[in-house]
Amino acid sequence: MSKGLPKRSEDYSLWYNELVKRADLAENSPVRGCMVIKPYGFSIWEKMQAELDRMFKETGHSNAYFPLFIPKSYLSKEADHVEGFAKECAVVTHYRLMNDPNGKGVVVDPDAKLEEELIVRPTSETVIWSTYKNWVQSYRDLPLLINQWANVVRWEMRTRLFLRTAEFLWQEGHTAHATKQEAIDESIQMMNVYAHFAEEFMAMPVVRGVKSASERFAGALETYCIEAMMQDGKALQAGTSHFLGQNFAKAFEVKFTSKEGVQEYVWGTSWGVSTRLIGALIMAHSDDQGLVLPPKLAPIQVVIVPIYKGEEQLQVIAEKVTELTKGLRKKGISVKFDDRDTYKPGFKFAEWELKGVPVRLAIGPKDLENNSVEIARRDTGEKELFSLENSLEDKIEALLDDIQASIYKKAYDFRAEKTTVVNSYEEFKQILDEKAGFVSAHWDGTAETEEKIKEETKATIRCIPLDQQAEEGNCIYSGQPSKGRVLFARAY
Amino acid sequence: MSKGLPKRSEDYSLWYNELVKRADLAENSPVRGCMVIKPYGFSIWEKMQAELDRMFKETGHSNAYFPLFIPKSYLSKEADHVEGFAKECAVVTHYRLMNDPNGKGVVVDPDAKLEEELIVRPTSETVIWSTYKNWVQSYRDLPLLINQWANVVRWEMRTRLFLRTAEFLWQEGHTAHATKQEAIDESIQMMNVYAHFAEEFMAMPVVRGVKSASERFAGALETYCIEAMMQDGKALQAGTSHFLGQNFAKAFEVKFTSKEGVQEYVWGTSWGVSTRLIGALIMAHSDDQGLVLPPKLAPIQVVIVPIYKGEEQLQVIAEKVTELTKGLRKKGISVKFDDRDTYKPGFKFAEWELKGVPVRLAIGPKDLENNSVEIARRDTGEKELFSLENSLEDKIEALLDDIQASIYKKAYDFRAEKTTVVNSYEEFKQILDEKAGFVSAHWDGTAETEEKIKEETKATIRCIPLDQQAEEGNCIYSGQPSKGRVLFARAY
Repeated sequence: MSKGLPKRSEDYSLWYNELVKRADLAENSPVRGCMVIKPYGFSIWEKMQAELDRMFKETGHSNAYFPLFIPKSYLSKEADHVEGFAKECAVVTHYRLMNDPNGKGVVVDPDAKLEEELIVRPTSETVIWSTYKNWVQSYRDLPLLINQWANVVRWEMRTRLFLRTAEFLWQEGHTAHATKQEAIDESIQMMNVYAHFAEEFMAMPVVRGVKSASERFAGALETYCIEAMMQDGKALQAGTSHFLGQNFAKAFEVKFTSKEGVQEYVWGTSWGVSTRLIGALIMAHSDDQGLVLPPKLAPIQVVIVPIYKGEEQLQVIAEKVTELTKGLRKKGISVKFDDRDTYKPGFKFAEWELKGVPVRLAIGPKDLENNSVEIARRDTGEKELFSLENSLEDKIEALLDDIQASIYKKAYDFRAEKTTVVNSYEEFKQILDEKAGFVSAHWDGTAETEEKIKEETKATIRCIPLDQQAEEGNCIYSGQPSKGRVLFARAY
Repeated sequence: MSKGLPKRSEDYSLWYNELVKRADLAENSPVRGCMVIKPYGFSIWEKMQAELDRMFKETGHSNAYFPLFIPKSYLSKEADHVEGFAKECAVVTHYRLMNDPNGKGVVVDPDAKLEEELIVRPTSETVIWSTYKNWVQSYRDLPLLINQWANVVRWEMRTRLFLRTAEFLWQEGHTAHATKQEAIDESIQMMNVYAHFAEEFMAMPVVRGVKSASERFAGALETYCIEAMMQDGKALQAGTSHFLGQNFAKAFEVKFTSKEGVQEYVWGTSWGVSTRLIGALIMAHSDDQGLVLPPKLAPIQVVIVPIYKGEEQLQVIAEKVTELTKGLRKKGISVKFDDRDTYKPGFKFAEWELKGVPVRLAIGPKDLENNSVEIARRDTGEKELFSLENSLEDKIEALLDDIQASIYKKAYDFRAEKTTVVNSYEEFKQILDEKAGFVSAHWDGTAETEEKIKEETKATIRCIPLDQQAEEGNCIYSGQPSKGRVLFARAY
């Protein structure tokens, strides 16, 4: 709180890192690449979890829990999967420590070497499908609609709080179905659940689409995704839902007897979102004063700061606040009364601004006299004097709705402004360098072209939008014919 | 479902294992010692988590998340702690796999050896206190009241579903305080939260006490615990809360400036309960027909089974059920209508009995005629015909309360019957062998005696009860003077 945040316009990356730390969201841990999620940051994750979990259950899914460890050989059972995930992994090789015979401390006991190494799960398809084998015999056992909330580890070399860490928290849904169509429908449904969550709760507009073959999940036949636009013009993949075909069923021999008595392989999906969403939430809305949180995910929706001199004045204000708080809480609004006597109001204002509390109320002796309260909204900074002759609960409820909608609209308009249709590679490169954002362009559909563009511009195909218009055109790179535009961007 | 469970009286251990599997609670995974918690089992854990999490928050705690990995050297920083935990651990030594140069599959990349090995957390004191160092400067930063829900790994050689597994799920609270008394009060408070949860929600009476020095948590000055009695007369430690003194503060240099401007070490506590509670729940109440779940933790409180011939009858019953279900759900009662047409009523009755659903309703054509329903309670097996002239919601609500209370009373009476006061070592050994349960006896307070008794009888001191009466006596083993009785038992 000693000095202001770096400005987004001057150093977006530094602004992000500082904001995450100063707003008490997370910090780097002593373990390389692993983060500590601090209580305020974790409470945002809890809000996200609660809404997502509710939506998963409403769509018929149950939670379960599978082992942290995966036998090394399991990773090799699905050919594409091993290429994608058996690389940067945390490998457990021993199961015991012993006192160092040469002195202090402990060392790994060489006699306690595992016969087969265990991998800390980077994702759980293999261990889950090996389990499903025993759960599925007949069509009556299908569908299996299961989700798990878990930690996973991918040994990333360059990490960034929330966006890319060696360990992160996520949920991973793994479903098994009797028919191909049912599995495809499931993966599309879950992409839609994610999109709904992003737009309705995170106030973050997303493009729904499918990944190009080279950006697909290792082991999937199709990867559905939601893509969001950050304030620096870079895209962020916010959630993916994979149609796995029968790949994992074949790798782990998961078969069922159909109604007609025929043995068939099961069809699968998997889908996940992670603590990365917190990074997206921060980068989508926050400003140079700090976090801007959508009311639906804000751990504290309203903070009340008393303006007073001496214990006696505080006492009178506190009584009024108790009354107001009661009314607000009845409406389900979360309220914090910041009556710390160790800090001045100005300090508190700056702190809650930094922490993104959507609405701030300030009450001083004059307000008591006039039966009023000052209301300030975080997103626009607007203040107004509100007469308590009227219902404060109704006012705040409407205000929170308005803030939620305004934040969404601002992000929506920003994205629209940052989406550019281009028809030549020159224009493509120019837009990427000068304006950034999504670039909508024709592509010939080949991995070679995609790779070349990536090499030359660092832009990747974020997705082939589901609402892609049929439009004849020519690939901006190869000039080959194309039947519709895809979205390119530089991305997190 | 093909045949009955083993009987408790014949093979308690087999009965437990079979019940856990057949009731779809959990199963062994392909990874040695790690379990898969199946959806039905996990939904019990979710119920437990929700209540505990609410209680933690009501007592001022926030959730956070700390890394899965602990640098090996951290374990050595607290002298007792390293003795207790740096033994059977999962050790990560490498961070990369590569294609096997000699053929198929993947192997550990020898070039990707970590400079310092990482331990998969067996408990998180060390990594958390190393973090707290930077969070605490002044008395204003205290207390820190933090909890985390996490997975931990202890490489157990003999594992048992829920009771002892290499990986398990738990919560671990870690708090830091300015004064000794505040830390002691916190550890007692959390023991009381656990006791309240066990008795109120699990319907499982517990003894509150402190551990003897040799049973204490490695690094604690005092371990408070709750101890429960299982149906086979063995005790089970259901939760522990540790007063850590300044041990971890000193090991990790966590100091604060007091109000008086003096630099002091912080006082700490830690406390935890785990998925072991599910094992306790099963063993405390269930019978030879299957699970008996207390209504407050039952994922499904009421199951409705239709008795019908043909689609038409089912249709009429379903309409009635929809109406009844609506009323029950309004009261917050969870209801499942089992209208599967692939199974007969008798099969369904047995299945829900096995799964411990507290109340079963059966409705057939005769019931429709008479405007009645058959109500069966799981705990006693009692059935009654209930006229729907009266309010079913009120009836079921009262019945669930009654079942919750009855299950508790049954367990309470059982424990009373299984608690024996003895005054000689002969009697002590005889009771242990012939009756089991808690044995209340005088002990001279020395670790030597405790160890000898353990060696000779396999009984351990479960706790020194907090409500211990002052009573002069002589140690059953050494004859030395003792000022009060402690509770011994063979234990899980």
